[in-house]
Amino acid sequence: MENFQYYTPTKVVFGRGVENQTGALVKEQGCRKVLVHYGSRSAEKSGLLDRICRSLDEAGIEYVRLGGVVPNPRLSLVYEGIELCRREGVDFILAVGGGSVIDSAKAIGYGAADEGDVWDFYEKKREAESCLPVGVVLTIAAAGSEMSNSSVITNEKGWLKRGYNNDCSRAKFAVMDPELTMTLPKYQTASGCVDIMMHTMERYFNQSENMELTDGISEYLIRTVMKNARILMDEPGHYDARAEVMWAGSLSHNGLTGCGTDGGDWASHQLEHELGGMFDVAHGAGLAAVWGSWARYVAGERPERFARFAVNVMEVPAGDDDLETAFRGIRAMEEFCRSIGMPVCIRDMGIDLTEEQMAELAEKCSHFGKRTIGCVRKLTKEDMYQIYKNARG
Amino acid sequence: MENFQYYTPTKVVFGRGVENQTGALVKEQGCRKVLVHYGSRSAEKSGLLDRICRSLDEAGIEYVRLGGVVPNPRLSLVYEGIELCRREGVDFILAVGGGSVIDSAKAIGYGAADEGDVWDFYEKKREAESCLPVGVVLTIAAAGSEMSNSSVITNEKGWLKRGYNNDCSRAKFAVMDPELTMTLPKYQTASGCVDIMMHTMERYFNQSENMELTDGISEYLIRTVMKNARILMDEPGHYDARAEVMWAGSLSHNGLTGCGTDGGDWASHQLEHELGGMFDVAHGAGLAAVWGSWARYVAGERPERFARFAVNVMEVPAGDDDLETAFRGIRAMEEFCRSIGMPVCIRDMGIDLTEEQMAELAEKCSHFGKRTIGCVRKLTKEDMYQIYKNARG
Repeated sequence: MENFQYYTPTKVVFGRGVENQTGALVKEQGCRKVLVHYGSRSAEKSGLLDRICRSLDEAGIEYVRLGGVVPNPRLSLVYEGIELCRREGVDFILAVGGGSVIDSAKAIGYGAADEGDVWDFYEKKREAESCLPVGVVLTIAAAGSEMSNSSVITNEKGWLKRGYNNDCSRAKFAVMDPELTMTLPKYQTASGCVDIMMHTMERYFNQSENMELTDGISEYLIRTVMKNARILMDEPGHYDARAEVMWAGSLSHNGLTGCGTDGGDWASHQLEHELGGMFDVAHGAGLAAVWGSWARYVAGERPERFARFAVNVMEVPAGDDDLETAFRGIRAMEEFCRSIGMPVCIRDMGIDLTEEQMAELAEKCSHFGKRTIGCVRKLTKEDMYQIYKNARG
Repeated sequence: MENFQYYTPTKVVFGRGVENQTGALVKEQGCRKVLVHYGSRSAEKSGLLDRICRSLDEAGIEYVRLGGVVPNPRLSLVYEGIELCRREGVDFILAVGGGSVIDSAKAIGYGAADEGDVWDFYEKKREAESCLPVGVVLTIAAAGSEMSNSSVITNEKGWLKRGYNNDCSRAKFAVMDPELTMTLPKYQTASGCVDIMMHTMERYFNQSENMELTDGISEYLIRTVMKNARILMDEPGHYDARAEVMWAGSLSHNGLTGCGTDGGDWASHQLEHELGGMFDVAHGAGLAAVWGSWARYVAGERPERFARFAVNVMEVPAGDDDLETAFRGIRAMEEFCRSIGMPVCIRDMGIDLTEEQMAELAEKCSHFGKRTIGCVRKLTKEDMYQIYKNARG
């Protein structure tokens, strides 16, 4: 078992109607002027944004609004948000949305608290020393950004998608009403479920000894998401299923499922980030499209771990040896993904990768040959190319 | 599923040798003068206290020491600590020990930040508005106080044992080195394991609908503690088993295993608190001594819940109906307790309760007939008397 830190200071307020507590929660933080940050017009149309603003009004909190966040959130809007915060004397950023909005809010928070270029942090040139306080009203269960320390931003110059993790950006509070996620389209719901599962799977597949309690929590969490994802394909308005998925989304990425391990592999995420940067695919779908290829490529390095996953999570019968069981589990996961309308290869997303594109993805993902990714097997640029190729379909 | 809040701001630093980071962690809090609070001489004799003080010295932190905390920590020492904090200008309280020391530290923290009598909070006369920051170096895995918002203090006047919960007392950090628990006597280790299990069981047995993910985590957590408790009876120096139990202790009482429920029953804790106040028994042992009696008394109110516990946690085969399964589960839990040297009735602890004592316990536990306890079944003073009587043995 590895030494670990676990730090999840975010106050979660979970359940029906809790978004009406937003104003009071901001007030509790002692802040006076809020940037309300959001994405699509659905938050405006549904009346959610009005309810949030009313709640801020009632608490006597001033605010300015900045919408327009898109999936794979853009650096240009982050710069705009930083400028707006400075101009308006904003001291709190409220993200109303899913992972993209929260990640954009964190980036604005880093930038507004710093003199230099916020992209430096994402390029790993410097460490952020502080971040404006961020709060969340969650409308999509997927990224887990509401309790995590991570933020992923896409720089339009070169379409580079980069992540940055720092505890100072962890949200002060997360308002989580499962009812807000009921209107999500089926594809986005499914993609969110895969994203949630993958945050635990990335940690589960590692190169360290493990912690039994962490393993048990992880396995149950993934099974719970699968079960409830299936329910939501038929009954998108099923409150309890939405709630199980939403809470799993937070626990899956707040650090709990990594305690006592080396932190996990994360290669699938890196591989997907480049895909997302190049093609703007839904993150969870992109993960589903590359995971099987990655898993087959590396399973031989830790067949016993993949076999445990196959039996305890995918509930397949054990084969003659661990590697056979491992491959059964990978197939079963792909079948699950298909069953909820998720891709299991890149072509399933309507993308026909060219040789040049695969080479470019591998170049970017390896930072032009300067880094390896993953820990189950350390993947070089050549390995990445091969995994993209096997995932092409 | 019920609405819930989840708030666990404590930074956990877990693993071998992490106690040497204590000074740096206090410094991170921006504090200058620490009250080092501890219990028995074992912390002094083992050299742990010296290591902690060295770590504070290295970080340039001043400190004063206050030892002498006993199990079922006393109000008189709390008053002494408050006085000491005021006299010395202490701005941080470091608890080096287990639940009793941490609870005492929290009480000192409340008192030092308040003008009035700290016992008011425990008598529920007032709510605390703040608490001096508390940090923990954990040496006993049991109470979960290192991540919880609760504190239990015994007032020697009348031997009243009272708990008070408030988020402002949650520890800023918890330093958790499983090696520090290796020298605990077998009885105390077993008692700690029961305490840990009970923090989840108190939440698990409730009167609400439940959250699947919470149930799964809870069931796995209890099974993990049972498995590792058995290991520790033979191999007290088994690092991984110590670590599993230690981490389970924190997760069991930080709120995680209550998410989405009504908060749980807690009658066994109330019944035990009075026993502990009167006889100074080890808390976990006292819980083991009353739980079976409580469970049999109330199982008929929620047989399906007790049956699920029997099958999923105690792994007994289902009987002809839920109630039969429920009773099998209760028996299996008692067998487990016996197997690790824990009592299953009050006589097992060498206490031969008189009629008068049972009546007095029920009087005190019901606050002289003014309150009921529990939610699976709301217990009156008469119910409490009957449960003590059935638990007498």
